[in-house]
Amino acid sequence: MNYNIAIIPGDGIGPEVTAQAKKALDAVADEFGHSFTYTNALMGACAIDETGNPLPEETVDICEKSDAILFGAIGHPKYDNDPSAKVRPEQGLLRLRKSLGLFCNVRPVKAYEQLIDNSPLKREIISGADMSIYRELTGGIYFGDKHLSDDGQVASDGCTYSMEEISRIAHLAFKEAQNRRKKLTLVDKANVLETSRLWRKTVSAIANDYKEVELDFLFVDNAAMQMILNPKQFDVILTENLFGDIISDEASVIGGSIGLLASASVGKENALFEPIHGSFPQATGKGIANPLASILSAAMLLRHLNLNKEADRVEEAVEKSLELGFSTVDINPKNPLSTSKVGDFIADYI
Amino acid sequence: MNYNIAIIPGDGIGPEVTAQAKKALDAVADEFGHSFTYTNALMGACAIDETGNPLPEETVDICEKSDAILFGAIGHPKYDNDPSAKVRPEQGLLRLRKSLGLFCNVRPVKAYEQLIDNSPLKREIISGADMSIYRELTGGIYFGDKHLSDDGQVASDGCTYSMEEISRIAHLAFKEAQNRRKKLTLVDKANVLETSRLWRKTVSAIANDYKEVELDFLFVDNAAMQMILNPKQFDVILTENLFGDIISDEASVIGGSIGLLASASVGKENALFEPIHGSFPQATGKGIANPLASILSAAMLLRHLNLNKEADRVEEAVEKSLELGFSTVDINPKNPLSTSKVGDFIADYI
Ligand SMILES: CC(C)[C@H](C(=O)O)[C@@H](O)C(=O)O
Ligand SMILES: CC(C)[C@H](C(=O)O)[C@@H](O)C(=O)O
Repeated sequence: MNYNIAIIPGDGIGPEVTAQAKKALDAVADEFGHSFTYTNALMGACAIDETGNPLPEETVDICEKSDAILFGAIGHPKYDNDPSAKVRPEQGLLRLRKSLGLFCNVRPVKAYEQLIDNSPLKREIISGADMSIYRELTGGIYFGDKHLSDDGQVASDGCTYSMEEISRIAHLAFKEAQNRRKKLTLVDKANVLETSRLWRKTVSAIANDYKEVELDFLFVDNAAMQMILNPKQFDVILTENLFGDIISDEASVIGGSIGLLASASVGKENALFEPIHGSFPQATGKGIANPLASILSAAMLLRHLNLNKEADRVEEAVEKSLELGFSTVDINPKNPLSTSKVGDFIADYI
Repeated sequence: MNYNIAIIPGDGIGPEVTAQAKKALDAVADEFGHSFTYTNALMGACAIDETGNPLPEETVDICEKSDAILFGAIGHPKYDNDPSAKVRPEQGLLRLRKSLGLFCNVRPVKAYEQLIDNSPLKREIISGADMSIYRELTGGIYFGDKHLSDDGQVASDGCTYSMEEISRIAHLAFKEAQNRRKKLTLVDKANVLETSRLWRKTVSAIANDYKEVELDFLFVDNAAMQMILNPKQFDVILTENLFGDIISDEASVIGGSIGLLASASVGKENALFEPIHGSFPQATGKGIANPLASILSAAMLLRHLNLNKEADRVEEAVEKSLELGFSTVDINPKNPLSTSKVGDFIADYI
């Protein structure tokens, strides 16, 4: 069968790692007799450079017509320290999430046995940890009204959530919990925020439809602590946009490397797959970036297309590379392979 | 000399731990020839029970007249899972911070040599870590407009910051950095939030007055990861209210126990001292709560009154108790002392 895949390499190390994921997809196509038609699209700093727009119309178009989107990374330091820049790379990603309605971001986190000693956490704390973070992705303070007073003295951001926005992702998270260890933790700040109280109320009501799932609540400050003290307590975590951003990056330390964390951003019609790591400008072009998160994003993409055997094979290849130490410098500092050599190994194995 | 100290025991384990801090203050008074006049005041769930108001007028009054305020903890589970409760314990604390203008929350975090093996983090990651977190405490989304639509379907929280609010705490943080290792890290989300961009702009401008301090910036998601990957990189962290809440609780894992983290909340006229741990309802009344964070808060209080020798002595007593293993169950599970026995040891040592 043929699938249309939109590829957005993006900025920094995005293009390098995405190229390796594409190798893996090509190997899958060969091996399992599929055909993937790739269409490249611009987004982020590179899109600003070429078109002045972080998200050209054409990119949205290509994405809408695709069966799935593979995305690299976004961001460039020249915008980060320029608080008055009118156009910024991140706007591209945020607008894409919004225009495609990618409301549900899924970030699986597990401690890879081969990487446990890589983690700053003790083995006994993380060994066996395995969670899935459901982050709301098209609401909250990311998309609220922003305002800067005319004299530049006062800034504000609005944070809004509706029951409907909360419900649709809550149902997905409960379903995931049903398929896993049947525990769902809502992370919020209901002792302070009105939006968090709406989350708590809405999710509590939905819990009645999923009686076999145990629901509990954690304030986000406590969750940030519990994530490190005892990550094994978590099965599925559900949370709003900003808390999800923070908590999931924090959780990356459990896996032993952020270079391994993949994510899916799913909407009603479209789905985008991307590594959690950012554009990592310092590493760009040096062949040292870890491509596994992007390759594992491709595995999530395959699963989304219902190509489960194919996804299993990709994941197996990743595990094998870790076992053999065929890894980039972040994981194997003594005897590192380059980004593209790791990609070659994965493709060969597939 | 005589000092007026307002004591707000609060909820949960608040009263138990505050009682131990008071013992320490009494011992200091005896030993160094001071006199402390304590006035107790109500706040939180206990205040709601007695007066219907989480922050009775009288409490504000007592605090305003005091030289310093010692506070325990706030919160009760019966309010947490009731999103529609009109009155909540936390409102007491938030209103007190606001009415006394306690805009600068300081949370020192260091790895106590004696507790390092208690931490979920590896020894080499945390040994030597020593930072001070400056959290803005009277602005941001905590105090923005909150709204719930009439049909209960849509909730919102506003987040606002002015340059003035940012400047006053930024100056304090830069001064602290000057007295320490001369590094200041601003934690924000300037790639998404307008308020964060105002923080970045304001703090960058102020940096010109403190040329010997190195200023850098971290996005909050990355900061949550860096805090665990390499906490030793931090000296002074400056951040807004909500990010400070999350990051400082997370940072507590470095110390090996949240039971040791004290904090100061300072305004122009008043100052309040409190442990970072919450009301910990499950432990209430069992004599197992760790009183050290409250005792160390008393040490910060003494320092605020310029009683530095006295503060040193209290801190010495705490170190000694850790050395000897005269600790509560969280730190010494094999041979624990009760809350009040630890308090007695500290007072005796002083
Ligand atoms: C690049 C940035 C806008 C983005 C976010 O905050 O959502 C990133 O951190 C992420 O988590 O995907
Ligand atoms: C109790 C709560 C409102 C409070 C806060 O969020 O500020 C607490 O977590 C703290 O950090 O002092």
